[in-house]
Amino acid sequence: MAAISQKETMMTMNRVVRLIERPVGMVTRSCFSFEDEAVAEPGEGEFRVKIECISLDPAMRGWMAEGKSYVEPVALGGVMRAFAAGVVDASNNSQFQVGEYVTGLFGVQQFAISDGNGVTKANPEVAPLEAWLGGLGMPGWTAYFGLLDVGEAKAGDTVVVSAASGAVGSVVGQIAKLKGCRAVGIAGGPEKCAYLVDELGFDAAVDYRADDFFATLKAATPDGVDVYFENVGGDIGDAVLSRMNTFGRVAVCGLIAYYNATSAPDGMKNVRSILVNRLKMQGFIVFDFAKGIPAAMAELAEWYREGKIKFRQDVREGGVDAYPEVLNLLYTSGNFGKLVLKV
Amino acid sequence: MAAISQKETMMTMNRVVRLIERPVGMVTRSCFSFEDEAVAEPGEGEFRVKIECISLDPAMRGWMAEGKSYVEPVALGGVMRAFAAGVVDASNNSQFQVGEYVTGLFGVQQFAISDGNGVTKANPEVAPLEAWLGGLGMPGWTAYFGLLDVGEAKAGDTVVVSAASGAVGSVVGQIAKLKGCRAVGIAGGPEKCAYLVDELGFDAAVDYRADDFFATLKAATPDGVDVYFENVGGDIGDAVLSRMNTFGRVAVCGLIAYYNATSAPDGMKNVRSILVNRLKMQGFIVFDFAKGIPAAMAELAEWYREGKIKFRQDVREGGVDAYPEVLNLLYTSGNFGKLVLKV
Repeated sequence: MAAISQKETMMTMNRVVRLIERPVGMVTRSCFSFEDEAVAEPGEGEFRVKIECISLDPAMRGWMAEGKSYVEPVALGGVMRAFAAGVVDASNNSQFQVGEYVTGLFGVQQFAISDGNGVTKANPEVAPLEAWLGGLGMPGWTAYFGLLDVGEAKAGDTVVVSAASGAVGSVVGQIAKLKGCRAVGIAGGPEKCAYLVDELGFDAAVDYRADDFFATLKAATPDGVDVYFENVGGDIGDAVLSRMNTFGRVAVCGLIAYYNATSAPDGMKNVRSILVNRLKMQGFIVFDFAKGIPAAMAELAEWYREGKIKFRQDVREGGVDAYPEVLNLLYTSGNFGKLVLKV
Repeated sequence: MAAISQKETMMTMNRVVRLIERPVGMVTRSCFSFEDEAVAEPGEGEFRVKIECISLDPAMRGWMAEGKSYVEPVALGGVMRAFAAGVVDASNNSQFQVGEYVTGLFGVQQFAISDGNGVTKANPEVAPLEAWLGGLGMPGWTAYFGLLDVGEAKAGDTVVVSAASGAVGSVVGQIAKLKGCRAVGIAGGPEKCAYLVDELGFDAAVDYRADDFFATLKAATPDGVDVYFENVGGDIGDAVLSRMNTFGRVAVCGLIAYYNATSAPDGMKNVRSILVNRLKMQGFIVFDFAKGIPAAMAELAEWYREGKIKFRQDVREGGVDAYPEVLNLLYTSGNFGKLVLKV
């Protein structure tokens, strides 16, 4: 079997997207090279993954930038970093058999070599492969730990989440409901807002593009806000800060408003709320909770099987060549659900 | 005894400062009335305090403003709220005897009636009465809980405190040293900076007025910053945020930069540091730790008796009539040490 698989791939090329220039402002095509390279063979203890779909995540913009962050920036000339899902098509690692489905940091390319580090198995019989990059993958785990560990959400709390129809936000609101909280989502446009309430069971949704945004937010949080799951920052973040209750928690998961800024952003104006309301505002990334991931994943999968939680994928065609354009949908609210690129 | 004391005070008037107008920007004399009123007699369970000195605290600016805060604003026409220290001169409360020294929220006036709620006894034999409004009083407790409970400072940490020569900041740095931390203070001007290092034993002091402020801050924190005790906000806060280590803590005690702002302030520009460094930024007030105050006070007094901790008072003359001008010294860095007004 291994011999046949090798023969097949010898005839195949690996289309690879490399970062060749750090973006200023929005990401453009000229930041990347798109080239066919020879497919590599797995070494001892390694296996090869034929990538089927690639996850587009807001954090990618940060990975492209130079400077101190929670992970090393992607090196110039390096394969663009990405979570991806695929099937093992050659293996010298007994823990990963040919034919098994896996997710991991495989990069924006068609084939990846892995030693299994940071790789998680996916079961397409439980949920479509794309969902293992979404609600059952890193975005789902992020929602889980951010809401429950950082945000300390408990029954009776009012939870507000921004970018609520996105991969993380949609799970935040649904877990909040399962835990007995009032869930309020902030999203862009009436279609996404209707989806939150009608499909996902949020108690209320607030359209940040509407003129009456703040009045609607106020009406949707009559008892104030106990937990704010922050994905965006900027004016939206400031508006929610003004609604926080005493001893409220702000779980800072993302700050999309600042990612593509080319000049110094305005910053958080409502700093005073932290003091007056004695808020705890805490930044986190999902890898800080690495030990808890298997348990979180199991709980999410169980909720999914029981129909208590839904995931929406926004799957785009075009292969790895479409990466820059599809990625930018994240920063222009062009996606609706977990954004995935089909390879 | 009670009869004599009553007779004496019947002939005395009580000079009272009342808030008659909410300030816009800096506090001015026209915000207050200054009048002589008849001295009141204590009712059942009450006692009267002859006030000897009044504490000037940055929080006072907030107490004068309308709008939601951690305490009710001072009512228009009400006695201006203030911590003060004095001696009991008439009492119908067996727990507070005539001749005992006390501190409490007695207001900007010469005499106050109290039922004992929130009143603490002071011992002028241990430390001068002014110190019971400073390092052994609310500012000292604030430093204690902010650094150890909110900031979670531990041996080996680098602690930075702004407004470091002030009533709270000076105690923060000294407790940090007692706990085995590196203590770095930010203050205005070479005199205050020298005081921090030479008198109080800080490891380094940084003059925020100097042109090389940021370079000096960087040099003073070669291993980054683990705990930032925030008293000011604004550009100083942003500068320290850029020096924070992963999992650093920011204890938000005050935000002087914003208190007198008449237009929307710039806000915190370096919000990204919260996310990238996974900071915990938490606002607090000392009353959140009410249960621990007696123990904190005992520990502070013990350190003081052993000469391990020093307090500096900046005592001003002029009586209650000088209140607005003396208060404004806090917002213009005009004081040096705990600011107290002698009555």
